[in-house]
Amino acid sequence: MKYRNFPMVPRVIFGNGSFAQLGEIIMPKRKNSEAPFIFLIDAVFEGKALVTEIPLLFNDQIVFISADEEPKTQQVDALVKLIKETYNELPSGIIGIGGGTLLDLAKAVAIMLTNSGSSSEYQGWDLVKKPAIYHVGIPTISGTGAEVSRTTVLMGPEKKLGINSDFTPFDQVVLDPDLTLGVPKEQWFYTGMDCYIHCIESLNGTFLNAFSQSYGEKALELCHEVYLNDISMAESRDKLMMASWHGGMSIAYSQVGVAHAMSYGLSYLLGVKHGIGNCLVFQHLEEFYPDGVKVFKQMQKKHQIQLPTGICANLSDEQFDLMINVSFGLVPLWENALGANWQEIMTYDRLLALFRKI
Amino acid sequence: MKYRNFPMVPRVIFGNGSFAQLGEIIMPKRKNSEAPFIFLIDAVFEGKALVTEIPLLFNDQIVFISADEEPKTQQVDALVKLIKETYNELPSGIIGIGGGTLLDLAKAVAIMLTNSGSSSEYQGWDLVKKPAIYHVGIPTISGTGAEVSRTTVLMGPEKKLGINSDFTPFDQVVLDPDLTLGVPKEQWFYTGMDCYIHCIESLNGTFLNAFSQSYGEKALELCHEVYLNDISMAESRDKLMMASWHGGMSIAYSQVGVAHAMSYGLSYLLGVKHGIGNCLVFQHLEEFYPDGVKVFKQMQKKHQIQLPTGICANLSDEQFDLMINVSFGLVPLWENALGANWQEIMTYDRLLALFRKI
Repeated sequence: MKYRNFPMVPRVIFGNGSFAQLGEIIMPKRKNSEAPFIFLIDAVFEGKALVTEIPLLFNDQIVFISADEEPKTQQVDALVKLIKETYNELPSGIIGIGGGTLLDLAKAVAIMLTNSGSSSEYQGWDLVKKPAIYHVGIPTISGTGAEVSRTTVLMGPEKKLGINSDFTPFDQVVLDPDLTLGVPKEQWFYTGMDCYIHCIESLNGTFLNAFSQSYGEKALELCHEVYLNDISMAESRDKLMMASWHGGMSIAYSQVGVAHAMSYGLSYLLGVKHGIGNCLVFQHLEEFYPDGVKVFKQMQKKHQIQLPTGICANLSDEQFDLMINVSFGLVPLWENALGANWQEIMTYDRLLALFRKI
Repeated sequence: MKYRNFPMVPRVIFGNGSFAQLGEIIMPKRKNSEAPFIFLIDAVFEGKALVTEIPLLFNDQIVFISADEEPKTQQVDALVKLIKETYNELPSGIIGIGGGTLLDLAKAVAIMLTNSGSSSEYQGWDLVKKPAIYHVGIPTISGTGAEVSRTTVLMGPEKKLGINSDFTPFDQVVLDPDLTLGVPKEQWFYTGMDCYIHCIESLNGTFLNAFSQSYGEKALELCHEVYLNDISMAESRDKLMMASWHGGMSIAYSQVGVAHAMSYGLSYLLGVKHGIGNCLVFQHLEEFYPDGVKVFKQMQKKHQIQLPTGICANLSDEQFDLMINVSFGLVPLWENALGANWQEIMTYDRLLALFRKI
């Protein structure tokens, strides 16, 4: 058995208001006054107080990016091109501020500033050859685990797949639960369920070990506290941020499963956002995760979340075929969920029937 | 409020048999054939199978060190002197294999190879100026959390105190539960209780935050599983190794408390080993940690652990005075346990009365 030597985020600061320490944290990483920090920020913060607190110096730059769509390889390539054209030297670092979309873009841009070609060439496992430039992740919504993972999931021309590599994780993470204050309720639910579903998939997977299990169990407990118990809003923000962190660590050393494999297909074809996509799929997976789906429905009911229906009602055979092929391409996810003989268990027709329910 | 930007171990490998991957892991860190790896190994492994699996190359060196006594600053200084005299250049790295004593020695030696003077000058908080050389921690007994902490606790000429710094944590940790196979029962109990007591102190401390709490709760749960439930030996080894890891993370972002402050005094004066010292103190701390002490006694009973008595029976007033002074010197621990006005709560006489019970 060969084990992965897992890269952890080497620096983390946690606490309400810790965002105010960002300037001090990145100061020693400034190479010189010509090498800027590039802040990639979710466009929802445009004109908001958060922006006034960004520690801009010299020729640092803020780029607002909409998170309405999943991050794309073309988007990464365009950002890298822009940065290279604007500056004579490599930036001091890339700082992503937002949800999974912004965090994944920041990781990918940091990688592609030192690796040649298109980011789509690096979608897969361990294809990145050179270390990324210094990059910082600052989540403003909790659940994806992108702040701690060794992947950056991108929509490419041919597939939705992560750039999984030892150079992907952030060099620094700032966990400031106060930054999640303004998240709308639906998004709070869908993104938190990304974490919840990670845990269910990790804890029920064949790749599970005591390391992943301990993180997954803790993250799951925290999700239960946040979504089933009645705790204060402040405590809820704190706990969901830690749930996301531990949930990310859990899958980092194991893998996700059926829901993620299917949700990638759904996103690829229809552009469905990752959080809601997972929920759309997961509700129909009782046969694989009976307890997990039951509790998911309790949470959904408690928070009065109505999932859209008929998403796949009018798809053509070709469209289903494409979705199924993208999904089947995620071999490690299926292996984790169903074991080495997963292809015997999850046939084309069975997967098609599941997609038709959505 | 100012938060600590905490350094995490940037690489970790987990799994039974993962020790076999050590050679491959350290290979890229070999500077050249003249710069050796120095393996500091607990002397109990002398002549054992583990030694044959050490990936020795070129002029690498194994140094066996007894863990019968707590690690000392003089010992660190002597090891550094020896290494500097033996080799023309700095080693490629230091690898500690053993319990807390060996791990702390490895961390301290790695620091002192690049920082001048005696290690006793660096006992305290953030006194280290230069990065340590590459260092790897491989625990062979679980509980201390030394594999993940930013301290290396040393007995100095004037005090028992850690070198707490951002340069202290290991660059790489190998978590191989199989390495804990031969640990004697008493040591297994005392070292595991170090973790248990960390958690109780962290979770009941005034420094607690959601980050520490989530790690501390998980570590505590794992301790309960290991010491109160009837699980298999293999599962128990896995879970205790993860308990130590999470327990270490919990105190990393908060602090220990009364038991550790007192146990440092006990160790300093009488050379009592850290694990048993914590137990000797903790059993008398019902007034501070009522639930924690109750469960501790259940665990002790289940595993038929008899703690020695009368340890402080024949001490002189001067000896008590010294012990109390060392203990009171650990200000952050008392602040965490009892709050800013701890000196009003824990008077000299009250502490003396507690020590007299041991």
